[in-house]
Amino acid sequence: MKLFVLFFAAFIPSAAVIAQVADAKPTPQLYSDQTVRNMREIQRAAASSTYAYDQTRYLSYNIGPRLSGSSQAARAVEYVADQMRKLGLEVRLQKCFVPHWVRGEERGELVEFTGMAPGTVQKVVLTALGGSVATPPEGITAEIVVVNSFEELAALGREKVEGKIVLFNFKFDTEMQSSGFGGAAYGQAVQFRFGGAMAAARFGAVAALNRSAGGSQNRLAHTGSMGYADGVPKIPGAAVSFEDAETIAHLARSGKVKLHLTLTPQTLPDVESYNVIGDLKGTERPDEVVIVSGHLDSWDLGQGAIDDASGVAVSMEVAKLLTDLKIRPKRTIRVIAWMNEENGGRGSAAYEKEEAANISKHFAAVEADLGASHPLGILFTGKPEIQAYLAPITQVLLPQGATQTQLQAGGVGADIGPLTRAGVPSFAPWFNQQSYFNYHHTAADTFDKIDPRQLRELGGVVAVLAYGLADLQQPLPR
Amino acid sequence: MKLFVLFFAAFIPSAAVIAQVADAKPTPQLYSDQTVRNMREIQRAAASSTYAYDQTRYLSYNIGPRLSGSSQAARAVEYVADQMRKLGLEVRLQKCFVPHWVRGEERGELVEFTGMAPGTVQKVVLTALGGSVATPPEGITAEIVVVNSFEELAALGREKVEGKIVLFNFKFDTEMQSSGFGGAAYGQAVQFRFGGAMAAARFGAVAALNRSAGGSQNRLAHTGSMGYADGVPKIPGAAVSFEDAETIAHLARSGKVKLHLTLTPQTLPDVESYNVIGDLKGTERPDEVVIVSGHLDSWDLGQGAIDDASGVAVSMEVAKLLTDLKIRPKRTIRVIAWMNEENGGRGSAAYEKEEAANISKHFAAVEADLGASHPLGILFTGKPEIQAYLAPITQVLLPQGATQTQLQAGGVGADIGPLTRAGVPSFAPWFNQQSYFNYHHTAADTFDKIDPRQLRELGGVVAVLAYGLADLQQPLPR
Repeated sequence: MKLFVLFFAAFIPSAAVIAQVADAKPTPQLYSDQTVRNMREIQRAAASSTYAYDQTRYLSYNIGPRLSGSSQAARAVEYVADQMRKLGLEVRLQKCFVPHWVRGEERGELVEFTGMAPGTVQKVVLTALGGSVATPPEGITAEIVVVNSFEELAALGREKVEGKIVLFNFKFDTEMQSSGFGGAAYGQAVQFRFGGAMAAARFGAVAALNRSAGGSQNRLAHTGSMGYADGVPKIPGAAVSFEDAETIAHLARSGKVKLHLTLTPQTLPDVESYNVIGDLKGTERPDEVVIVSGHLDSWDLGQGAIDDASGVAVSMEVAKLLTDLKIRPKRTIRVIAWMNEENGGRGSAAYEKEEAANISKHFAAVEADLGASHPLGILFTGKPEIQAYLAPITQVLLPQGATQTQLQAGGVGADIGPLTRAGVPSFAPWFNQQSYFNYHHTAADTFDKIDPRQLRELGGVVAVLAYGLADLQQPLPR
Repeated sequence: MKLFVLFFAAFIPSAAVIAQVADAKPTPQLYSDQTVRNMREIQRAAASSTYAYDQTRYLSYNIGPRLSGSSQAARAVEYVADQMRKLGLEVRLQKCFVPHWVRGEERGELVEFTGMAPGTVQKVVLTALGGSVATPPEGITAEIVVVNSFEELAALGREKVEGKIVLFNFKFDTEMQSSGFGGAAYGQAVQFRFGGAMAAARFGAVAALNRSAGGSQNRLAHTGSMGYADGVPKIPGAAVSFEDAETIAHLARSGKVKLHLTLTPQTLPDVESYNVIGDLKGTERPDEVVIVSGHLDSWDLGQGAIDDASGVAVSMEVAKLLTDLKIRPKRTIRVIAWMNEENGGRGSAAYEKEEAANISKHFAAVEADLGASHPLGILFTGKPEIQAYLAPITQVLLPQGATQTQLQAGGVGADIGPLTRAGVPSFAPWFNQQSYFNYHHTAADTFDKIDPRQLRELGGVVAVLAYGLADLQQPLPR
């Protein structure tokens, strides 16, 4: 029934009227008729634009992986700034100092297990976690202790863990992902990636492994950030592929399993880097800002295509569409390509610091960092009343099926997190997350994973949302 | 209609009767009523046996990859011979000398392309092809020339190829695979893996790459054998992943792309190895032999689970089921775990040589080396009349859906190929091949890819087929 109503509503000229009808008590008009017409025009233009796809391709193929501190991240800053200038934006680079962690060699090999033939070569596919310390250059050899939770680790205690390598074998819930809750599945698994080395080191382990915090069953290891705690020894951390976790867990059930592990990452001095910020000035309230953003840095294993070249590209797409259509927003739309989302959040912190006195002028913030597949609608963090303000926007997005809106407590994007916490209404495209974590943070996050039509849909969502917010006739509840 | 008839037929006690009715002219009874009852009992027992699954797991996890000449291949020979003895088979090891090719380091890195930032690290995921010569230890650096066919290569000629690396970018047809013709898709693509280096070297190339001859889109490179020709320089050969082929092809459209390629494989002296042969002696015609087989060696990137631990395991399963059920075949069932299918066929050649005078006593040969997914029925090579002999067998297999039979010209298995060519009726389980080539010859050919239920189905097909043939009351047309 609801679908039918929405479908019908799409053919009524002023969506603004519908929003008022849908709301129990009469509200002032949220969007002018002209704004609604413009939103429709933007949505249609997005459906045939190749701009975001081309930008995602350039970032993925011609620049490549963009880990903070790398020359490719620096090149990406130059490139995106240049492209934003070509769009006529007022561009500035916002300085931040980012970690410079460099992946070295990474090798794992089982050197003892039940039934092993002398001379056996049994490789383990693994990858160092971002920020990990190195093993000695010749590697370490130790028995693997397999646990499924922090509680199991604690139950084993120092006696059974000291001097060993702990494998956190918590299984990424692929069924949960298949049913559309990939983010929730990730949330469960990622705690062992982030906290595994800290927990294992407290019991004297010499290294920590985690079963990859993703859905891949294609021998791919899933990297990502890990943490260290003050006063706890820093031990190397790595993720093993799904298959290798299964192998090790099976072998460990019937006897001792020993691993020779070599990781040679280096943490070099911090590097000066930048958020790229491009303003499309508002015509009526230029001092009020709607941010639309993605992050420019990426992990180094793949090309950072879905995480998050696509997010940067669709944010740039907003400005491209508006300037091509000669539509000027009433408030300023600020396109941001954030630096260092993945392993430090230094770009986000720099923005927060610089804009601390200016939070009230941040009308809204949008971040696209949850995938590049078919968008289902819009997630938001803020007052529940905001939902009504989104109705006219999702009515414009009805033809592409992006009609759902949902309040998500706790934020919708890492880079806009400080703004969210300061009370700025925050938004993100809501994706079908049935496959995102099969590629996320792996070597397979490559340009081919971008579906051009779905990326155009994403451009539609982000552009209509950002423009609509920038033209809102009322303040957003906050 | 056909399905209905088959379904109905399954409830008639003697399948032998049906076969005679189905045949246009009356034929003598093919299978005794007792044989048909036994076949049904075997099919039911297979449906609940865990033997093949356990054997596949041991070969995959506790032994691991079993490339010819490796210590793991040697261990697999010992292990399987021992397991066959435990089943009460008459076991012998048949000597052969196998190539001993050892994969070394393999690294690819793009060092020049349009837009490349100085200092860029853009890795290429690739793997040396089996038998490839090495690059110098420091690697080679050369421009990549992308072609989609041998004809395109020839059209470029020596002038544009000399000193360069050729990438054969022929696309594995994933749609063809999805529609069930994975083998045909593989057949198209594999010619560039096998023949790429020979073709490229004729025009003066310094190395040859091929786009992986498989369906993976998960950054996996697909290894396999390659050829060299007398009188043509031997140049290194490697496969790049789907994603890297896409990346290189895109970059090459807008300018020069240079690769730094390092491959350090070694070809060591041939190693003595063995086919493992276990006979379950026939009660009435023990000198007549029905072979049931898989190959024990595998590529080294994964665990050789679907290629072909599963084939060996289900062949052993035939003997396990018959001895557990105390059913003795009339002819001898010979279980063979072939050595060196992947890169030489030396085991197969040794058998052919040793049994040359004895071909007429080989009643039939079965090989299971086309996957481990749901079996659709039986493929065969031989006289078309053989199809009628399979009807009672597939009627027994009806409850598990393995009812289709098809004549396949040119053979159904590499190891039994010499026997096939000598006129021995040859058989193979016919698989659903909609995903096999997503894992085949890659690091993801691991035990978890085995579906236990489907493997039990495979055991049913191979056991009923082998036993039925061994009990046939008539000679097979040949």
